[in-house]
Amino acid sequence: MSQYIPGLEGVVAAQTQISLVDGANGQLVYRGYVIADLAQEMSFEEVAHLFWYGTLPTRAELDGLAAQLSESRGLTEAASAALTALPKDADPMDVLRSIVSVQGISAHLEKPTLDLAIRATASFPTVLAAFHRRRQGLEPVKPRADLGHAANYLYMLDGKEATPERVHALNTYLVLLADHGMNASTFTARVIASTDSDMASCLVGAIGALKGPAHGGAPSAVLDQLELIGTAENAEPWMREARKRKERFMGFGHRVYRTYDPRARILKELCARLNPTFYELASKVEETALAILHEEHPERPQATNVEFYSAGVLQAIGLPKDLFPPTFACARVAGWSAHVLEQASHNRLIRPQSEYIGPEPRKPVPLAER
Amino acid sequence: MSQYIPGLEGVVAAQTQISLVDGANGQLVYRGYVIADLAQEMSFEEVAHLFWYGTLPTRAELDGLAAQLSESRGLTEAASAALTALPKDADPMDVLRSIVSVQGISAHLEKPTLDLAIRATASFPTVLAAFHRRRQGLEPVKPRADLGHAANYLYMLDGKEATPERVHALNTYLVLLADHGMNASTFTARVIASTDSDMASCLVGAIGALKGPAHGGAPSAVLDQLELIGTAENAEPWMREARKRKERFMGFGHRVYRTYDPRARILKELCARLNPTFYELASKVEETALAILHEEHPERPQATNVEFYSAGVLQAIGLPKDLFPPTFACARVAGWSAHVLEQASHNRLIRPQSEYIGPEPRKPVPLAER
Repeated sequence: MSQYIPGLEGVVAAQTQISLVDGANGQLVYRGYVIADLAQEMSFEEVAHLFWYGTLPTRAELDGLAAQLSESRGLTEAASAALTALPKDADPMDVLRSIVSVQGISAHLEKPTLDLAIRATASFPTVLAAFHRRRQGLEPVKPRADLGHAANYLYMLDGKEATPERVHALNTYLVLLADHGMNASTFTARVIASTDSDMASCLVGAIGALKGPAHGGAPSAVLDQLELIGTAENAEPWMREARKRKERFMGFGHRVYRTYDPRARILKELCARLNPTFYELASKVEETALAILHEEHPERPQATNVEFYSAGVLQAIGLPKDLFPPTFACARVAGWSAHVLEQASHNRLIRPQSEYIGPEPRKPVPLAER
Repeated sequence: MSQYIPGLEGVVAAQTQISLVDGANGQLVYRGYVIADLAQEMSFEEVAHLFWYGTLPTRAELDGLAAQLSESRGLTEAASAALTALPKDADPMDVLRSIVSVQGISAHLEKPTLDLAIRATASFPTVLAAFHRRRQGLEPVKPRADLGHAANYLYMLDGKEATPERVHALNTYLVLLADHGMNASTFTARVIASTDSDMASCLVGAIGALKGPAHGGAPSAVLDQLELIGTAENAEPWMREARKRKERFMGFGHRVYRTYDPRARILKELCARLNPTFYELASKVEETALAILHEEHPERPQATNVEFYSAGVLQAIGLPKDLFPPTFACARVAGWSAHVLEQASHNRLIRPQSEYIGPEPRKPVPLAER
């Protein structure tokens, strides 16, 4: 038997055309396009088209996809009804996991299709907006077909049109977070897809993995830590004390990038423009964190990760903290669903082995004699 | 970069004390006990205790666990309400995935605990029985605290106590299917657990993986094929014709066992006693399938898998075909939850890599010029 590989680190579990995380050069590539070239100009819909169809859309193709997305924003009757059954204090990630599952109910097993990818991606924001309004005692807002994906999400949350600046910021966030190679949630989706299961099962599993603080569940922790630090002046003393208590700095560290995360760079610029209060504190905290981390481990690369400045952007957009992780899911579902389709086209079960380290076989003692 | 390993075949992704699939010797071992020694005598509750606590229980420990399980059979208000929102023709695996998700909703992230493992395991049969009654237009039956796990499941389905023979058969099935090393659903649960996510997220992901026909979704397909064959006399001509059409024989083939699957052996004996009509046809079909498969690939081992005789046992117990896969989940949740606890205690993200095989980086053409 081969050797146990903790965390499957370095093991190549899939071949993919969807994205490349080039850690050495600090590049993220979506089907041959560098993220910095996409993030400023492209709509989320264009990037989703790129993932699903393999090409950037023509105007007509983009209009077609946008129309299909906007027609698919509604919830099924069962999903709407189930949503009203959920407790108002529920973690929105649990709500998303549950309602995406209900929305995906069918009478017979359906293979994953492009149409199901589109429908799922369209409906994630509807689930979140409906729940967020409901917990505030407000009626859900019906999606508006004339608004793009990002604009409509904000519209459904607030009941009024968002400023172009907020829409642009959310769109950029959605584009930046839409895929990232073989992360744990994408891998989960692909393992489930490899059993020939359905699209909803794959996405629900991926949401569950993204919920984990070691994966996508931490961006709100960045805000929590910044709130504790309070002011730029307090950054260094607070952070040195925190280190003595063995506390982690939130929003730092990544297994892949050896240079500055290209997504963090773009989000940082956006933050500086949109959220100067956050930026003033955050950039000082970043500087201090990087200095302390460098003192401790000079051999390690710079480590600001995507979550650090995501927090400031999502805050500037006006999202409550607990919608940060499920909004991450609203971005990543485009990538997840593309990976599911890619995996399903391979049709090979992902089934690693385990190494048994339990007791040697022996006879059980009957209950009466234990 | 290392090489792509399709299906992660042969890769050791976890160390576990929970079970050993010894394919070469045709043995399945639960924490040091061979399945053949457990299946005839032990209750599902004893095996669950073995998984969760690491030891077979004393009488007092078993009584304690049984009491805890029976107190945990109820659904939350949200889960009960969501259940009534689901379409009556829903695939019961989708129902289980959705209601386990709702049942697991909390306001804040909880780490996986033994208590959550017990609660989840206790509630799976309640979800299925309530849905099955509802789709027949019947009221759900409240669980009965004086009945064991298997007996109570059948009681909630039928509204009356099952015969000791049916209870014993279901208990044996639950024990046999409770764990099986690093299968795809268990692996899914462990990947999700590795992100520090919660118990419900892990179990919901596992249900989604088990739903896939390449994993747990096939036992009802065995019955479908037997129905098509119809009679023992028709087995050989039908199956030779099927092979010409490149059709698969359902219930054969396994990546691990080189000898007869020890679970299939026990289920086969049970079938012969409980379901003679099924057995007469099935044993002839098995004989024919093994002969044809041997002709085609004499180098391959015997291949009857656990699903083949599971179908006959579950049919004899009186379960409808579409409850076969979620009843498999009722067994496997004991193993899944034990693996989640084991993985959570390691606290290391499972994050393999992917190999990018998409286009080389290039500049995007602006939308207006496409």
